[in-house]
Amino acid sequence: MIIPVNLPIGSYDITIERGVLKKAGSVLNLKRRVLIVTDSGVPKEYAETVAAQCKTPFIETVPMGEGSKSLAVFEKLCSSLLEHGFTRSDCVVAVGGGVVGDLAGFVAASYMRGIDFYNIPTTVLSQVDSSVGGKTAVNFGKIKNIIGAFYQPKAVLIDPDTLSTLSERHFSNGLAEAVKMSLTFDKELFELFETADARENIETIIERSVKSKRGVVEKDEKESGLRKVLNFGHTMGHAIESVEELGGLYHGECVALGMLPMCPPEIRERLISVLKKLNLPTKYSGDMEKLITAASHDKKFSGEKVTVITLPEIGRFEMEEWTTAELFERMKEFFA
Amino acid sequence: MIIPVNLPIGSYDITIERGVLKKAGSVLNLKRRVLIVTDSGVPKEYAETVAAQCKTPFIETVPMGEGSKSLAVFEKLCSSLLEHGFTRSDCVVAVGGGVVGDLAGFVAASYMRGIDFYNIPTTVLSQVDSSVGGKTAVNFGKIKNIIGAFYQPKAVLIDPDTLSTLSERHFSNGLAEAVKMSLTFDKELFELFETADARENIETIIERSVKSKRGVVEKDEKESGLRKVLNFGHTMGHAIESVEELGGLYHGECVALGMLPMCPPEIRERLISVLKKLNLPTKYSGDMEKLITAASHDKKFSGEKVTVITLPEIGRFEMEEWTTAELFERMKEFFA
Repeated sequence: MIIPVNLPIGSYDITIERGVLKKAGSVLNLKRRVLIVTDSGVPKEYAETVAAQCKTPFIETVPMGEGSKSLAVFEKLCSSLLEHGFTRSDCVVAVGGGVVGDLAGFVAASYMRGIDFYNIPTTVLSQVDSSVGGKTAVNFGKIKNIIGAFYQPKAVLIDPDTLSTLSERHFSNGLAEAVKMSLTFDKELFELFETADARENIETIIERSVKSKRGVVEKDEKESGLRKVLNFGHTMGHAIESVEELGGLYHGECVALGMLPMCPPEIRERLISVLKKLNLPTKYSGDMEKLITAASHDKKFSGEKVTVITLPEIGRFEMEEWTTAELFERMKEFFA
Repeated sequence: MIIPVNLPIGSYDITIERGVLKKAGSVLNLKRRVLIVTDSGVPKEYAETVAAQCKTPFIETVPMGEGSKSLAVFEKLCSSLLEHGFTRSDCVVAVGGGVVGDLAGFVAASYMRGIDFYNIPTTVLSQVDSSVGGKTAVNFGKIKNIIGAFYQPKAVLIDPDTLSTLSERHFSNGLAEAVKMSLTFDKELFELFETADARENIETIIERSVKSKRGVVEKDEKESGLRKVLNFGHTMGHAIESVEELGGLYHGECVALGMLPMCPPEIRERLISVLKKLNLPTKYSGDMEKLITAASHDKKFSGEKVTVITLPEIGRFEMEEWTTAELFERMKEFFA
């Protein structure tokens, strides 16, 4: 299946197909210098499969985890491009999860002020969410995604076969973003989570999530208006993530927690059932003061007011302007 | 005078006006957190004049010179934004020459994936050239402008009064870019250089140069086609600059030298007269081998072929595809 994304600055296709990794060379232009960025947690054969289809491939494997989304690693990858004589006609390919996509995307966006970027997400999280939208970034000063660029890929390849090597926890982690998309846009998808097995329906879940996200991104490329809906669960989620840092909760798990305080009671109850079914957390008992300090640094807090997403019903959302104090109050109330 | 720039991604105004620095607050939205980036070579009062018109100003003064266009200084400025709690609603203002504009522009482009950027160029070079076009960057691995972004300012303020504090050499240095614009686009402006005093006609020179450059940028925001004409003299110029590094020739001086081998004899003769009149160099006697090694890393060399600009007559240009070998040959021939 091909899902085209049309943006004012250009268009690109998202291809969702089992086994597409093995024929990447027929979908992407790999007849040039290609820097393949992957991480130590991704099965080696994925990057190697892509490399085998490139004219002049170079593989850079960064350490697994958020720690690699740093300016230091960004610099290392830029050095690699420079050393290997990459020009504006060459390209960068991300093979891995969101960390690799965000990092490699920012490298591609910045090297020579932008060279071609292809994204081949291999986790549920990146397949349903981070591969669409053109957000690239690294972390800095302990704040997530604070330095980066809006930069669209030239193409995205999603091969659901790559999910077979994913741990149960990572699989569930990714589904949290799909649950988020269903809550704000897609009642049918939410009901699928309630009634059916997620792993058996993963292609449908990816497809419906990607389509919902595409709809948002096409209407608002740079998060000035509508795109804020994608932050549902993320403002609090990022705050939790900042506190948890390495070794704590995963991104999707934080988003799962971040959605809960924002739901009306009836929806919350159904959400809790779904999260439990998907082995996602429903309770947080960390340090509230630390959490709030972290939250106050979040880039979503643009000024004194913050846009929060609320749900009048499943599949429909509203935006409200809250003061940061109101938000912190809600967090305290819920997570106390 | 206001020169509007219209781009697909948005529009902004370039205001050219004596004394406009003192009323920046009425032209720009400075009623927010404002990071003013300047350098140690720029008279302090310029940044202070702007700061006095801001609600919440912070001044960051980086060391004068290309050395500040580094990832280390980029990181320092991002830290400053973070420490002072800058959000997406706040902004960055560059007050100084091209170094400050390129650096501060890349910081504004990258912080939170982009916050508002105003450019207030205070040198001839930046007023006639680098303030228009949205190219931001830092140097890396000894290569100029290798990491950066295309990022348009929200507004540009050009105050020709700021040029009164500029040294003769810096004044001439900037005029090299205006001479370049005249050679490729504006015969009348070239004749003005031949017949009149540049300092007395500086407003006309700025205005005509900015208008020529605007025309190019509006037609080609990202240097894929027409914009390559702006590289006239720059491919060789950058190579010379890479070799000269700190303390050597200035950017405009390198561009002056870089134009010479590309001119047909008759134009070259007239160009030499103009360069001499403006106290710009007309001969280079550095190490040719080093020069060519540096040139082979230049991002203008996109693959084996390189687009060079030639001049059938003054005010008109042609683009030709040369092999890098041909270009190196021409450099050797001319600079031997």
